[in-house]
Amino acid sequence: MKYGIALFPSKQLQDFANSYRKRYDTHYALIPPHLTLKNAFEASDEEIKEISRELENIAKQTRPIQLKVLKASSFYPVNNVIYLKVEPNEELMNLHESLHSGSLSQETEYAFVPHITIGQNLSSDEHSDVFGQLGMLKIEHEEEIDRFHLLYQLENGSWTVYETFRLGRDR
Amino acid sequence: MKYGIALFPSKQLQDFANSYRKRYDTHYALIPPHLTLKNAFEASDEEIKEISRELENIAKQTRPIQLKVLKASSFYPVNNVIYLKVEPNEELMNLHESLHSGSLSQETEYAFVPHITIGQNLSSDEHSDVFGQLGMLKIEHEEEIDRFHLLYQLENGSWTVYETFRLGRDR
Repeated sequence: MKYGIALFPSKQLQDFANSYRKRYDTHYALIPPHLTLKNAFEASDEEIKEISRELENIAKQTRPIQLKVLKASSFYPVNNVIYLKVEPNEELMNLHESLHSGSLSQETEYAFVPHITIGQNLSSDEHSDVFGQLGMLKIEHEEEIDRFHLLYQLENGSWTVYETFRLGRDR
Repeated sequence: MKYGIALFPSKQLQDFANSYRKRYDTHYALIPPHLTLKNAFEASDEEIKEISRELENIAKQTRPIQLKVLKASSFYPVNNVIYLKVEPNEELMNLHESLHSGSLSQETEYAFVPHITIGQNLSSDEHSDVFGQLGMLKIEHEEEIDRFHLLYQLENGSWTVYETFRLGRDR
């Protein structure tokens, strides 16, 4: 089965992101607005139990994360993805690192640029139109994130949450 | 904010449900296939923390649940909802009861009929057509469910998972 790891921002930021995703993001209906922490990977039922335990340990050792968004940006010319740029900080980068170390190692195509996608699969013309507007946006949003989620993908491409991991929570 | 409590069946059963939901369920894109344990309710940020602690206690005291589906059924003539009928059992009914007791009390319109919706908002003609086919289906599916989820609703009507609660797990 195909799994992925993501964090969901607050309802407020999700509603904001969705106001753009509705028109510009072909994945709008497949998953709520999110920040991908680990790209899709395959795991068996047995493997995911072990991974789940590991994620619990990582979560315990990670403090809640400040999520700060100041503007929209684009991966153009690599691809026509428009996103809310999440300011990198130590906790977030360390969490990403932990989710790609040891038994969770995974080849990654790109360096980690924390982001929340709001537009993708746009034609070049659409991309420059839309980014022409969104690139001007001044955003001032900051919030604390205290959890991340392990999800799996259904056959229709949508994602279901398998488990939540609370940060910095010794139980 | 509006919250709800649901459990998600296995990927296999979700894929099966989605093969019908895609055509017959207007909520197809808003939430993965699920069994509603508690209808939408309002809670503040403060209240949901308390509720979350309560759900953790309830989860600890609940054993994993057998989820058995043998057929599709319909709420017609009350409404034109077609669903996978989940056979009631003690654990499931007790969990539902716990989620509606004490501080979680909630007025409920109907008796609890555990189900996974696969069609809704159908016209009467559509309903009799579709149920004419689905009502004949013999299904033999049984699985164990070891968690439930607290979700909240975004402005576009879709649901995001806030937290997972593992059943019978003392930590």
